[in-house]
Amino acid sequence: MGLQQVSLNLNVRGLEKSATLAINERVAELKASGREIYSFGLGQSPFPVPDCVVEALKTHAHEKDYLPVQGLPELCTSVAEFHRREDGVNIQPDNVMIGPGSKELMFLLQLAFYGDILIPAPCWVSYIPQAQIIGRKVTLIETSYENRWTLSPQALEAQCAAENDHNKPRLLILNYPSNPYGDGNNVEELMQIAEIARKYNIIILSDEIYGQTNHQGKHVSIARYYPEGTIISAGLSKWCGAGGWRLGTFSFPANLKWLLNALVVVASETYTSVSAPIQYASIVAFNESEEINHYLRHSRRVLDALGQWIIRQLTQAQVRIHPVAGAFYIFPDFEYYRALLAEQGIDNSVDLCERILEDTGVAALPGYAFGRPKNELNIRMAYVNFDGAKALKSSEKTPWDRVLDDAFLEQNCPLVMTGIRKLIHWLSSLDNK
Amino acid sequence: MGLQQVSLNLNVRGLEKSATLAINERVAELKASGREIYSFGLGQSPFPVPDCVVEALKTHAHEKDYLPVQGLPELCTSVAEFHRREDGVNIQPDNVMIGPGSKELMFLLQLAFYGDILIPAPCWVSYIPQAQIIGRKVTLIETSYENRWTLSPQALEAQCAAENDHNKPRLLILNYPSNPYGDGNNVEELMQIAEIARKYNIIILSDEIYGQTNHQGKHVSIARYYPEGTIISAGLSKWCGAGGWRLGTFSFPANLKWLLNALVVVASETYTSVSAPIQYASIVAFNESEEINHYLRHSRRVLDALGQWIIRQLTQAQVRIHPVAGAFYIFPDFEYYRALLAEQGIDNSVDLCERILEDTGVAALPGYAFGRPKNELNIRMAYVNFDGAKALKSSEKTPWDRVLDDAFLEQNCPLVMTGIRKLIHWLSSLDNK
Repeated sequence: MGLQQVSLNLNVRGLEKSATLAINERVAELKASGREIYSFGLGQSPFPVPDCVVEALKTHAHEKDYLPVQGLPELCTSVAEFHRREDGVNIQPDNVMIGPGSKELMFLLQLAFYGDILIPAPCWVSYIPQAQIIGRKVTLIETSYENRWTLSPQALEAQCAAENDHNKPRLLILNYPSNPYGDGNNVEELMQIAEIARKYNIIILSDEIYGQTNHQGKHVSIARYYPEGTIISAGLSKWCGAGGWRLGTFSFPANLKWLLNALVVVASETYTSVSAPIQYASIVAFNESEEINHYLRHSRRVLDALGQWIIRQLTQAQVRIHPVAGAFYIFPDFEYYRALLAEQGIDNSVDLCERILEDTGVAALPGYAFGRPKNELNIRMAYVNFDGAKALKSSEKTPWDRVLDDAFLEQNCPLVMTGIRKLIHWLSSLDNK
Repeated sequence: MGLQQVSLNLNVRGLEKSATLAINERVAELKASGREIYSFGLGQSPFPVPDCVVEALKTHAHEKDYLPVQGLPELCTSVAEFHRREDGVNIQPDNVMIGPGSKELMFLLQLAFYGDILIPAPCWVSYIPQAQIIGRKVTLIETSYENRWTLSPQALEAQCAAENDHNKPRLLILNYPSNPYGDGNNVEELMQIAEIARKYNIIILSDEIYGQTNHQGKHVSIARYYPEGTIISAGLSKWCGAGGWRLGTFSFPANLKWLLNALVVVASETYTSVSAPIQYASIVAFNESEEINHYLRHSRRVLDALGQWIIRQLTQAQVRIHPVAGAFYIFPDFEYYRALLAEQGIDNSVDLCERILEDTGVAALPGYAFGRPKNELNIRMAYVNFDGAKALKSSEKTPWDRVLDDAFLEQNCPLVMTGIRKLIHWLSSLDNK
């Protein structure tokens, strides 16, 4: 055996780089080669980090100390206050944990917790590979287009009841507004899910990283109905435009302190603590202020207008799609075109994305990467390929009672619109091929 | 079963928070309660982040994008150049990986690599718990006070030869200048270790995070003698005073690309990428500049003078201790006092540290936390409890050809000196108890 002889953990072997990050790097390569690309791949907020938060980072640039593993106490307090204010949930500051992205915290949670993982699919791309790396069993819970891709309380009850051991430790990962479909369960469903979770002692990881991007500012945390068993996952990446800063938060209920403590121990042997200047700066983001509220109002307004325009176009083109409630994703389904696509040799979401990219330059991700069966014809598109700073300024100049119309979108989000039009044109041309 | 019923990964259960981080939090509590504490616990650089690096962070505070998982390309280039310049090792920029601290990268390495882990003890506190969390087998290689605690090439050879399978995949973790003992193998020994590693195809993780703190600026990387099998671990935390910033680097040889690629995949499912503003700012730290050289010269000079003073005091007090070559740690051994300590009911390093803290306010860590047998009487002391900014300024004002004398140290590092004196006084009082 030489040094080039591969000796890798079997759980890691054959894994590929996270699909969302891989598409980002591929798009960059294609662009560099001169191709015109309409990127709907990586789900990165188009908006800049608010000025007051950037200024806070400058102010704290000299902070050099290792901070407490669990997080800077002042920041934990701000996060707890944030959830109290925005979600009406009573979180204690010493039950908040700060991590270098909520993705890392989810990994630590899957590593530390010993139990089954329940995930409604479609789901975010990283939950399942994380479980695979750690060697955990994942049970995907079926959803359907008809049910708006959301978790049906009946399906959750059926899954739990079907297993012999009703008290098996279980972790349910909910994510809404959802990546990939931009919607989630309504309040009544959330209450039913909470009841079932209570019945089976399920721990819920509620991934609410897009909560503040709810287009109407009306996100409702399931922690309101299941406070004793819900861990709320949040962070700066999406609503605050700071994905690259890497700061995520977990907020635990008091009686899951044993789990929080275990995560802190593992954190102390892995990332140690989150970058000090970033933690100090983030306090400003979580604290209530007129500047942050203003920023949120206008970013939601832009995302809402653009999302609605896209849905209208795709619906007219016979693409199956639901309204979006938040985030910046759509999950269109091309079932209507199955026969025509089959004539082109396309019968699954992976080939579909490949061909769309080749023929139109529109880069999206297959539903398969989000836990859907490969033979379905759905894709995830992130509508973020526009100059968010410019769009915010334009929105500020547009009276609040006026709708952001097509002219506004043409001026501010031209590449997104062109991409959608190219996709629709490609669909309509399938007839003539 | 209720939600308070603990269900944890057995590898995580019973683990305690990293000893170095725990002592830091304990010292803070004791101080808050009004106790006078002489902290020799956490190994955090006393020096500020150089101004040019802080300024670079301010300049890049607005950077918000997710960076490539492996690292910002310009930073990877700077790190490769850094190792070429400082270590005379030929590293390609696309074989450099950036992580949120080298600790996190080590965890990913232990997770991705499938093989035995060899560690000479005493060793840094986190290598062994990391292996435990992942479920890897660790073989500790014996060292001794007589051999300056360094890895003996003969012991390494004997360990490898003793196993039936000479081609077993193995990872040797070397760390020098060492945490906990501030020294390392000399060049001749490094060459012998390299030869043995080559013979058995051992991969070496050379943890050189303290390389630039070598008090004479004469650090030698083992990668010079074993370039094809050495991963160099480095980062900003120690020589650049930026422990709290969380930026570490791994530099791979070309033929371990398979291992680098696996780490990148796991990183893409965990921390994603290192904070963008921090990565941009770090370019300035790794690039050669007069400001950085100046900063390094003076920080080494202060550490050298203080280290020598401490060694002289402890040696005079019959404490077994070797000269330090770099970093800011000593690993004194109190074997001379065994009988007297036994009269006080102290026969192991854990009780020794507890009692020293109680009786004198000197906070240090037991050798046991660094992989030594519990019944030895050694402790690790970090001599960093002084105002590094002030000490740098004072050193700048002292002509370069003049030694930083006791008066300089009294003025700049009073708490370290008082702590050492309290410890020695405590030892001398053992006779009279």
